[in-house]
Amino acid sequence: MSAVATTPQPPYYAVIFTSIRTDVDLGYHQAAKRMLELAEQQPGFLGIESAREDIGISVSYWSDIASIKNWKLNAEHQQAQQNGRNTWYATFKLRIAKVERDYGL
Amino acid sequence: MSAVATTPQPPYYAVIFTSIRTDVDLGYHQAAKRMLELAEQQPGFLGIESAREDIGISVSYWSDIASIKNWKLNAEHQQAQQNGRNTWYATFKLRIAKVERDYGL
Repeated sequence: MSAVATTPQPPYYAVIFTSIRTDVDLGYHQAAKRMLELAEQQPGFLGIESAREDIGISVSYWSDIASIKNWKLNAEHQQAQQNGRNTWYATFKLRIAKVERDYGL
Repeated sequence: MSAVATTPQPPYYAVIFTSIRTDVDLGYHQAAKRMLELAEQQPGFLGIESAREDIGISVSYWSDIASIKNWKLNAEHQQAQQNGRNTWYATFKLRIAKVERDYGL
């Protein structure tokens, strides 16, 4: 289950991760669940939104660039990143972006 | 059908539109298709990625803020935005973010 993330007033950061999966599971769903749990415990984590159809889009929100770097370097996450490159993703793109303004309904 | 967008070297802009639909169609799918066609014709448009499960996430990429503003003010798009607020979306959040770096597989 994913919901629209509640985030503070900008500026803050978004990591936009867009991917196409291979058809190999090999622990993918378990790792995805674990990475979500782990991300939520990181300093600077603000929220996450995810959906998958033809492609998967997962946008995580962070208070600053340093928090994003720390999360990237987390040991369990590094192992997952390696499995992602080698096994789970046919292609992906990761974009780091500074949210300058937002509004909603 | 949606694919991972091919975008130039940063910096460029991302508009992250996250939404939950009502159960009312009333022209939604037709309008969504038309807005995609129309967005692709706008100056500064770079690409778009979309997926919907529990929530919908649509990330469009633009060369600069001025292009995003022009698109927001497009007359057909303004009508769609009004229908979105009044009819199609139970909730949404729109975030404008400057992509500072990216990498991929």
